[in-house]
Amino acid sequence: MLPFSVTILGSSSALPTLKRFPTSQVVNLNEKLYLIDCGEGTQIQLRKFGLKAGKINHIFISHLHGDHIFGLPGLISTMALGGKKGELHIYSHSELKLMMDPLLKFISEMDDFRIIYHPLSFRGHAVLFEDSKLTVESFPLKHRVPCCGFVFREKQHELHLRGDQVEYLKIPIRERVAIKGGADYHREDGTVIPNSELTFPSDPVRSYAFCTDTVPRKQIIPVINNVDLLYHEATFGDDLKDLALKTYHSTTKQAAEIALEAGVKKLIIGHFSSRYKSEKPLVDEARTIFPNTFAANDGEKFEL
Amino acid sequence: MLPFSVTILGSSSALPTLKRFPTSQVVNLNEKLYLIDCGEGTQIQLRKFGLKAGKINHIFISHLHGDHIFGLPGLISTMALGGKKGELHIYSHSELKLMMDPLLKFISEMDDFRIIYHPLSFRGHAVLFEDSKLTVESFPLKHRVPCCGFVFREKQHELHLRGDQVEYLKIPIRERVAIKGGADYHREDGTVIPNSELTFPSDPVRSYAFCTDTVPRKQIIPVINNVDLLYHEATFGDDLKDLALKTYHSTTKQAAEIALEAGVKKLIIGHFSSRYKSEKPLVDEARTIFPNTFAANDGEKFEL
Repeated sequence: MLPFSVTILGSSSALPTLKRFPTSQVVNLNEKLYLIDCGEGTQIQLRKFGLKAGKINHIFISHLHGDHIFGLPGLISTMALGGKKGELHIYSHSELKLMMDPLLKFISEMDDFRIIYHPLSFRGHAVLFEDSKLTVESFPLKHRVPCCGFVFREKQHELHLRGDQVEYLKIPIRERVAIKGGADYHREDGTVIPNSELTFPSDPVRSYAFCTDTVPRKQIIPVINNVDLLYHEATFGDDLKDLALKTYHSTTKQAAEIALEAGVKKLIIGHFSSRYKSEKPLVDEARTIFPNTFAANDGEKFEL
Repeated sequence: MLPFSVTILGSSSALPTLKRFPTSQVVNLNEKLYLIDCGEGTQIQLRKFGLKAGKINHIFISHLHGDHIFGLPGLISTMALGGKKGELHIYSHSELKLMMDPLLKFISEMDDFRIIYHPLSFRGHAVLFEDSKLTVESFPLKHRVPCCGFVFREKQHELHLRGDQVEYLKIPIRERVAIKGGADYHREDGTVIPNSELTFPSDPVRSYAFCTDTVPRKQIIPVINNVDLLYHEATFGDDLKDLALKTYHSTTKQAAEIALEAGVKKLIIGHFSSRYKSEKPLVDEARTIFPNTFAANDGEKFEL
């Protein structure tokens, strides 16, 4: 299976702490890096955790609050200074461009690369990005400002060719691609060998969903259903659920309930309020509902 | 003497490193904090080094390159979340407001405090700020974009009253303020005791000058003449003086020559290019010209 991981760069809510930078994560699929949110200090965290800023070509921004975007100008400057070429795609609320343009006009090294802004839809589920290995989808969350979650899904993998049959039937190389895609094998003598006799099943496809900032929202369940890994914000413990509602955030138990109902395999909670000195009670509380819960900590890497 | 210090929050040039954040410093005079420049992560450094963001009411921005300003939106958000009240004064190129406004409009907690932007003059020496203890002046540097240096000067202190004379002459409390300001003492019997017999000299006034980013510029010498502490950028070692000139920066030796000609007491060099893994060779090189040179390192506090 291809390497597929999520590295937490920042896991605080609005106020960073000595242990937690504001929200940012890197999804790595087969050494292609996708950034989700970009709180202040993201470029510093990338460096600290050995991830190259210049390898990021796609950035997904959930919403335009400062703790999710204030790292963008510095990251983009550093990319420019590092000689980045080509295109940087940013998926966000359309207003982001208006916020960034005045900041970026002083960066004289940006002649060689271009930022392409893609507006998010906050009305419904949409496919944002697609290549041969991955699709990235967005779906609306519910926060004080327009906000989207994202799902990263591996594309269906090729079937595995059965080495014994390839050898026995002397299948030419040119036919193998089609068979790995599901085709039967037509021999020169006219006989047909069905695909099921030529292949083993493909690897399972994996998926990662990112949901912050938001109140718990049942409407997202069909979209994130059965994902392997779900990041869901849990800004507060369950005793502060009134405050969570008022500020359009979720509690530990609410995040766990979403994970449970969506039948996900594993839950990461994060975006912790700076009032919590330890994440342990928060994780313990979520585990009363969804046992396979873990805390996001800066620098931690979750393999899918 | 009142506490008067400079704490280095960031000392890198454009690219931060694992050891150095981008430029930012805090001047502390008698527990009033003044921020100079605000590179990305300034709010994180303030927290790390135990300085309260909410105590800063004046920010001086040398120029509008990202490594000197990209920490502002996060710092201001954090001030707002911390319940800051009153006025925050920012002294900078007038364009800064246009860069900040689109970023700050999402900060809903800013109802209680107001940012007042003060435009810098890039033509000549000017007094920016003055209170009972301090003046802050600006003066033009020479960089790729308009840039100013700053001098923080203590105001002339009061004279020290001689306790023996106060007692012997029974000087009433109401007269003492005038005497500390230099007045003679007129006794009720008409005799006059000259001030020189009533006081000891005041404490010396101290001063700090901040010069980055710039080519070495002789025109600044009259302004920074005899300061107690000079911070002067030394982005490069002396072997890269062509590159320094091309990018409008200074070398170690050029910074040291400015310090020597200005007759300052102590020199701090910083804004080091990320190519230097250690600051030691840079300091050694500067010391061949100005022996009392030290490197700026994040978290270091220089007492005046």
